[in-house]
Amino acid sequence: MKAALDYATQNADAFVDQLKDLLRIPSISTDSAYNADTRRAADWLADDFRKIGIPNVDVMETGGHPIVYAEIGSDPDKPTVLVYGHYDVQPPDPLELWDSPPFEPVEKDGIIYARGSCDDKGQAFMHVKAAEAYLETTGELPVNLKFMIEGEEESGSVNLVPFIEKHKELLKADVVLISDTSLFAPGVPSITYGLRGLAYVEVTLTGPARDLHSGVYGGGIENPVNALCKMIADLHDENHHVTVEGFYDAVRALSNEEREGFRALPFDEAAWLEEAGAPATKTEDGFSTLEGITARPTLDVNGIWGGYIGKGAKTVLPSQANAKISCRLVPDQTPGDITEKLRRHFEKHVPDTMTLDFKDLHGGHGAIVDTKAPAMKAAAEAMEAVFGQPPYFTREGGSIPVVADFKRLLGLDSVLMGFGLDSDAIHSPNEHFGIDRFHQGIEASIRFLDAYSRQ
Amino acid sequence: MKAALDYATQNADAFVDQLKDLLRIPSISTDSAYNADTRRAADWLADDFRKIGIPNVDVMETGGHPIVYAEIGSDPDKPTVLVYGHYDVQPPDPLELWDSPPFEPVEKDGIIYARGSCDDKGQAFMHVKAAEAYLETTGELPVNLKFMIEGEEESGSVNLVPFIEKHKELLKADVVLISDTSLFAPGVPSITYGLRGLAYVEVTLTGPARDLHSGVYGGGIENPVNALCKMIADLHDENHHVTVEGFYDAVRALSNEEREGFRALPFDEAAWLEEAGAPATKTEDGFSTLEGITARPTLDVNGIWGGYIGKGAKTVLPSQANAKISCRLVPDQTPGDITEKLRRHFEKHVPDTMTLDFKDLHGGHGAIVDTKAPAMKAAAEAMEAVFGQPPYFTREGGSIPVVADFKRLLGLDSVLMGFGLDSDAIHSPNEHFGIDRFHQGIEASIRFLDAYSRQ
Repeated sequence: MKAALDYATQNADAFVDQLKDLLRIPSISTDSAYNADTRRAADWLADDFRKIGIPNVDVMETGGHPIVYAEIGSDPDKPTVLVYGHYDVQPPDPLELWDSPPFEPVEKDGIIYARGSCDDKGQAFMHVKAAEAYLETTGELPVNLKFMIEGEEESGSVNLVPFIEKHKELLKADVVLISDTSLFAPGVPSITYGLRGLAYVEVTLTGPARDLHSGVYGGGIENPVNALCKMIADLHDENHHVTVEGFYDAVRALSNEEREGFRALPFDEAAWLEEAGAPATKTEDGFSTLEGITARPTLDVNGIWGGYIGKGAKTVLPSQANAKISCRLVPDQTPGDITEKLRRHFEKHVPDTMTLDFKDLHGGHGAIVDTKAPAMKAAAEAMEAVFGQPPYFTREGGSIPVVADFKRLLGLDSVLMGFGLDSDAIHSPNEHFGIDRFHQGIEASIRFLDAYSRQ
Repeated sequence: MKAALDYATQNADAFVDQLKDLLRIPSISTDSAYNADTRRAADWLADDFRKIGIPNVDVMETGGHPIVYAEIGSDPDKPTVLVYGHYDVQPPDPLELWDSPPFEPVEKDGIIYARGSCDDKGQAFMHVKAAEAYLETTGELPVNLKFMIEGEEESGSVNLVPFIEKHKELLKADVVLISDTSLFAPGVPSITYGLRGLAYVEVTLTGPARDLHSGVYGGGIENPVNALCKMIADLHDENHHVTVEGFYDAVRALSNEEREGFRALPFDEAAWLEEAGAPATKTEDGFSTLEGITARPTLDVNGIWGGYIGKGAKTVLPSQANAKISCRLVPDQTPGDITEKLRRHFEKHVPDTMTLDFKDLHGGHGAIVDTKAPAMKAAAEAMEAVFGQPPYFTREGGSIPVVADFKRLLGLDSVLMGFGLDSDAIHSPNEHFGIDRFHQGIEASIRFLDAYSRQ
């Protein structure tokens, strides 16, 4: 491993130059005008895998953009690590807010500015360079290594699940390694061990058959907006708990150890609140803000509309009221179960003056990984060696659906070892990635593969 | 009076032809492309007043479309009646839904189809023809008569209050006569003695400074849409009473006699509900539907919006939630007082996680007229003579702001003797007016002037 680490240090600048080449390819998966560029990024990666001496490389077709697969080693005595990442990027719009062109990487004060620099070309490429460091020095890896770099993450990964289902044998591994998340704070190492899932529904209440005159009908016909507001208000009790029957049944309770872990995190709540721009926080009774945003389920209205929403006053008694409502889920809640519970709740409480239309829009499973699993220990060891302090184990409030897919389809846990920062402006203008973090990621990957082989 | 009635019968067809001439003028007050036509309608009316022998006729300028003023008689021993109406009309859009051109009157099965036929050219013109019937036969009227026919009713009557304030002396009268409402049902005479007022506000709740990711922030930042829904839900109690403090303080209670009057009305609630298209009615506890929609105050959300309202699922925790909310008011509630009570209510209940913006958009006073007043008795006598049955005294749920303006500025009650029907499609394609009702209106006007002169 020492030789690999030295190689990475010696080739640090070359690695950055190579990354810049990859960043120059506008692989915007959601815009078909960039289909050729997106494929070019896949081919570029496949070429790089071949250059570093991986014999088994394939640009595999899907119904959409291809998946770059690479594999080295099949030693039955070694564990197998599957690295997941994505080579596609978000559209760069609004272009006028970029300080430099999104696909012409600019290095400034040790930071690379370019679309995809952090999400996820920069982070996925760290693992390619870690493999190179081993192959160019010791000539072999401490583990069997598989890469699966997809090209549709920013457009919904629509072909990913079918691909995994079709290639279960090919993708067999002991653990998945993903770098597509963030450090807890600059210089503060962390490993994400929990993600929330999602149940997203849309409800429409219909009262009268058309918009009515509020003077002529008001007082005799119930207003669907008022009624929907009441139904939404009743979804939380005075302690901000969700009132949907059975909502918390499957929630895995936080252990004392986990809660201690949350308390130990250097979470600057005042700074966090200021960044969000709200006058005060609000969390369900009995839980801290950090627990509330990462380890507890939620229910939020994402959008509401009904009646007259133009300028001025129109005296309409609306025919319909609509809301998009979603729940963030925690293990072991499932989107199917929670959606059904929401449906039953709404059906039970719809007034007799209204009809209800309830739509299941979207769902995703949460995920949680045992922090004492061998791969997690290996990741912690690697991170501590890189940063000089043990990593925090954290949970994230958002969702990475592929993590649940790997668990569900392949039985694999994922190690989420991310080197982004919340301030990296992913999905926004002036996306960037610290070159120091790029190198820390390569080092951590080298150290993880070694540590995991010894577990 | 007999001679005047005979004259009206003999000239029935001529009156209809004249009305058609007036209906051919597209006096759309809200669209400046029709400014010349709108003025042409005013001039047409003034000419007709002169033709029937009224000496004192004036097309009076306002800041917008002119008001046609006509006056005959100044006998101090006679009461003075001020007829109010409007010669402007709603835009005819959507044009493609008309079965015949909106400004080419078509007569079919005893009905005139044209924009303005009912609202309000046809109804205002009835009183002109009633005056003609007297002047062409007896040569004088039983009362002093003033006409004030405005041209901005369909565009908010913005110049009306300043006009009334400026011409208080000119407009001095004992009562106002208005035909711009409806019969209770076909063949069922009614006189409107109550109208509701309006207090219309807009509220905005702001939580975070920008739309947030519901996964990253959900559970720690309160959602302004959820919070606004709760505030709106809390505006009614379980009996559907409005909970705003002091909301009912000024409400004039319904007398037993009024409530008996409501019960006596031939109100077909099932048909009414079917027409509205809702599964069931809903009224505050203790009141009938008819009381609820005409004689009780209400609180309705006219529009609500916040967050993502496009297609599909976007996991946003919105920065803002907005609602347009209005109350229909009954005597003696005032829009100023109710708006202040709403403001205090919202300010008191805004969560500490939000800021509130409260806007007063619009207000109007309700009105109520003593059904035993001389003019009301005269109107009842006239309607009974025309229809062969005494009229019902009814209240309407909507607002006619000018009625409150006449009371407030001139101290005058208004007699609302309308001959429309709810099915006349005013403000909609294929507006129409029954020729029988046009003639009934002329007869009722002749009889009213006579009866009122004898009170």
